[in-house]
Amino acid sequence: MIESLRLNFEAVNNNKLFEVSVVVVILISALIVGVDSYHFPESSKVVKLTIFISFFISCFYVFELFVRILSKKNKLEFFKNFWNFFDFIIIFISLIPIDLLELALLGRIVRIFRVLRIVVIIPELKILLGSIFKSLPQIGFVALLMFIIFYIYAAVGTSVFSSVNSELWGNISVSMLTLFRIMTFEDWTDVMYETMSDPNGSQFSWIYYLSFIFFTAFAFLNMVIGIIVNVMEEERELLYVQEHPENLTINDLSNEISDLKKEICETKLMISSLVHSR
Amino acid sequence: MIESLRLNFEAVNNNKLFEVSVVVVILISALIVGVDSYHFPESSKVVKLTIFISFFISCFYVFELFVRILSKKNKLEFFKNFWNFFDFIIIFISLIPIDLLELALLGRIVRIFRVLRIVVIIPELKILLGSIFKSLPQIGFVALLMFIIFYIYAAVGTSVFSSVNSELWGNISVSMLTLFRIMTFEDWTDVMYETMSDPNGSQFSWIYYLSFIFFTAFAFLNMVIGIIVNVMEEERELLYVQEHPENLTINDLSNEISDLKKEICETKLMISSLVHSR
Amino acid sequence: MIESLRLNFEAVNNNKLFEVSVVVVILISALIVGVDSYHFPESSKVVKLTIFISFFISCFYVFELFVRILSKKNKLEFFKNFWNFFDFIIIFISLIPIDLLELALLGRIVRIFRVLRIVVIIPELKILLGSIFKSLPQIGFVALLMFIIFYIYAAVGTSVFSSVNSELWGNISVSMLTLFRIMTFEDWTDVMYETMSDPNGSQFSWIYYLSFIFFTAFAFLNMVIGIIVNVMEEERELLYVQEHPENLTINDLSNEISDLKKEICETKLMISSLVHSR
Amino acid sequence: MIESLRLNFEAVNNNKLFEVSVVVVILISALIVGVDSYHFPESSKVVKLTIFISFFISCFYVFELFVRILSKKNKLEFFKNFWNFFDFIIIFISLIPIDLLELALLGRIVRIFRVLRIVVIIPELKILLGSIFKSLPQIGFVALLMFIIFYIYAAVGTSVFSSVNSELWGNISVSMLTLFRIMTFEDWTDVMYETMSDPNGSQFSWIYYLSFIFFTAFAFLNMVIGIIVNVMEEERELLYVQEHPENLTINDLSNEISDLKKEICETKLMISSLVHSR
Repeated sequence: MIESLRLNFEAVNNNKLFEVSVVVVILISALIVGVDSYHFPESSKVVKLTIFISFFISCFYVFELFVRILSKKNKLEFFKNFWNFFDFIIIFISLIPIDLLELALLGRIVRIFRVLRIVVIIPELKILLGSIFKSLPQIGFVALLMFIIFYIYAAVGTSVFSSVNSELWGNISVSMLTLFRIMTFEDWTDVMYETMSDPNGSQFSWIYYLSFIFFTAFAFLNMVIGIIVNVMEEERELLYVQEHPENLTINDLSNEISDLKKEICETKLMISSLVHSR
Repeated sequence: MIESLRLNFEAVNNNKLFEVSVVVVILISALIVGVDSYHFPESSKVVKLTIFISFFISCFYVFELFVRILSKKNKLEFFKNFWNFFDFIIIFISLIPIDLLELALLGRIVRIFRVLRIVVIIPELKILLGSIFKSLPQIGFVALLMFIIFYIYAAVGTSVFSSVNSELWGNISVSMLTLFRIMTFEDWTDVMYETMSDPNGSQFSWIYYLSFIFFTAFAFLNMVIGIIVNVMEEERELLYVQEHPENLTINDLSNEISDLKKEICETKLMISSLVHSR
Repeated sequence: MIESLRLNFEAVNNNKLFEVSVVVVILISALIVGVDSYHFPESSKVVKLTIFISFFISCFYVFELFVRILSKKNKLEFFKNFWNFFDFIIIFISLIPIDLLELALLGRIVRIFRVLRIVVIIPELKILLGSIFKSLPQIGFVALLMFIIFYIYAAVGTSVFSSVNSELWGNISVSMLTLFRIMTFEDWTDVMYETMSDPNGSQFSWIYYLSFIFFTAFAFLNMVIGIIVNVMEEERELLYVQEHPENLTINDLSNEISDLKKEICETKLMISSLVHSR
Repeated sequence: MIESLRLNFEAVNNNKLFEVSVVVVILISALIVGVDSYHFPESSKVVKLTIFISFFISCFYVFELFVRILSKKNKLEFFKNFWNFFDFIIIFISLIPIDLLELALLGRIVRIFRVLRIVVIIPELKILLGSIFKSLPQIGFVALLMFIIFYIYAAVGTSVFSSVNSELWGNISVSMLTLFRIMTFEDWTDVMYETMSDPNGSQFSWIYYLSFIFFTAFAFLNMVIGIIVNVMEEERELLYVQEHPENLTINDLSNEISDLKKEICETKLMISSLVHSR
């Protein structure tokens, strides 16, 4: 009897209408997040409507989650899939009645993250995110190298420039933020000219900034090129396998020609035996 | 008789002088758009001249359109080509006497878009635009992902920072514009320092900005790499077909060698029969 | 006798010491350009020294040019090489006594361009510049497309925003400069916010800026990708020819195997004749 | 006996615990550099602790260096490895009691550079840095070309604009810094508008800035493409060798087929001899 109930849930889960309604509800939740941002007065009808719809969405999400979990034979298997687990966490957190805890801001932010469910629903976005995550380890050591460059330059910058401008160079974390700003070229000359003209600074401080820009630009360039080369190698190997499904290489051909040679040699031997037998 | 008239039109359409004069007239229309922008006084001779030439250009465009439509056997076929249709729409709209409707500004803008006709006339630009349009679908899902990132960050930014600066973070659409500005690194530190120092903001708001920059930069990088890889794969396949016009692969060679083997086996059989026949 | 004189000049031209001294003199001329920029007082010894050395450099350049021209058998052949001609023009212009014409500024600029001779002397730079020039035509039509985008947007911008800020949008050329600034993301939000808040502008003018940024970024991206793909195709073809000096393709192999087949068929025929002859 | 001592040192050097403790000590030294930057009062416990730990780190580094040198058979061989030498220099300099020389700032900077040792300890970072250094010569001549462009534009800029703003265009080195700023698009329009509106400047000075941006952007683009192409060619050759370990090419195949032909020809000769012998 439980199995027949499970099959019913599975039928609902695979129903086209159900799938569409899930997407529609998520889009409505995204719309409400947008409407919410316009700061309508608390007593306005719009706010009351959003609260009502928000409540309905929460109910629907719980219902949908139940259907999806109950449609599985092994209930725990559902949580083994990363995206299902991710989905579950988002829905679960969004249900916590944070408003009661007088943390209205946090409650609103959690509701915003429900929009992220769209990624779980659209398969193409899951694939895209998957391929982006896969390319992350490739940039791991370049990121570490960049962090070391940032750390050392920030420590030097704090030592030398903290007396010039403590807001930009006060301690190592503030200095790292300033260096990130310099890497994005955002008003970096203002920072440089200040340390160049200040009596506590040095007119040679441009060496500090230019060397930092060169190092980070070069490391960044290497990272980008590394990713491009990696992606293209993978594509090429994929293409290679597609083009040569039977995996025939020049070596295989060479083996076949060797076979031919043996055949011909045998033929020659037969003929020679014919000659000698005479 | 209609057919002979059509052939006359076709002769005009294919006439080298006609083609050149079309290009010249479009260039003149572009020139007039430029001259127009210098705000000569209404009564000056230049303005009167531009109005006269503008009228002449409209007449010429209509004449040219008639020639091109009438030179076709099937008149409707003309509109099936996207570029012809595009051309027709531009000419048609530019003919509407918008000045009469006291919408002088709109009228001037429509006249400006007539310059776009140069794209239709030069085949290389048509090919270039075609290849650009073809690469658009490849970036579709990355664009969707980016929009989701923008939407969520804008919603969070509105919730948290709207009390700091309502001009930048007032509602979700204004916040998205501010985030686009941050993505282009345009004075993004001013925005960040404001929310970091404001009592309504938080000194940890740099996490918001830096994570946003990393996410968008990474998604953008993936998009660029995706396009590069796609274009190069297409080029390679094109090159492959050009180099191997008869589409010979190693597999084909292997088949030919198998044929050889059969031939040699038959030869051996013949010789063996010769031996046995003895 | 003239021939023996020419051979003497050729010997001087190919002399290692002469080549080195040419490079040294060019480096000195570059140094003088740098020293010149420090605005020493007219009467200082440094200025007198630079004037003297500058005169010596001019003499040496003329001498060097004579040696190089006279060392050629056919004097006119010298000017057929683009770089020689380029060199000759630079030296010739730098000799014009512009100071006498009271155009001291122009005279100084001409002396600066003598530094460009370093490009002619170092072969690797000539090759590098050659390869850069070769990739120019590839971007021709993209550049034209970009110019059309700039022209149309500048014309629209002038029509709509000239009443907001005539310094940025006064006429079509000023507008194109403003658009170039927006393309480099240089304080583009200042320009946008001005037209968005001004009563003569429109709060929807962000559409104008964002669409422009998307169009130009996309066209630029296409240009870069086009160049990368082109360069890599050329490299690949170069590599292909190097790896296969005898230009053997799979088709050639197929032809050789066909030859083999004929040989074997003939063998079979011979054997069959042997059988029948019996 | 010395040899047995050496073997003991080698055992310590290869001990897993020793390797881990080296990494831990370097991480602690990095942490101290960070803590140092927060400017605690001289008398605070934190400062006293950092001084104590700093002293311990120095001792540990010397101990570690001794172990690593003494574990080698040939002591001088240790210094032949670039990274070992680099490591030795960092440790040696950090030991100099610069504080005594009342150069507290320099002492602190040297302590910061001890963090760089992390690069020597992690093999992946050594490989990464090695590959970055290898790609440096490829960009040598492009860097030279860029320097020439910078030098000439700086000299021209100094000649023409030094009367407009001596802080930006005072002499050739200041002008080069200004040009680098323009290359990064950092408030470049401010610099341009100043020289365009100033009576000592020229309204046509935009030509100077735009041409500079185009030249440098183009040279930079060529450098990036050059690096990408080089890296990919190397990858491809590496891949090629991996895929074809026996280095079989189409030419080898052709040779094998020629061998086959000879064999068949001999067979034919034998048969023909059989026929004639009859």
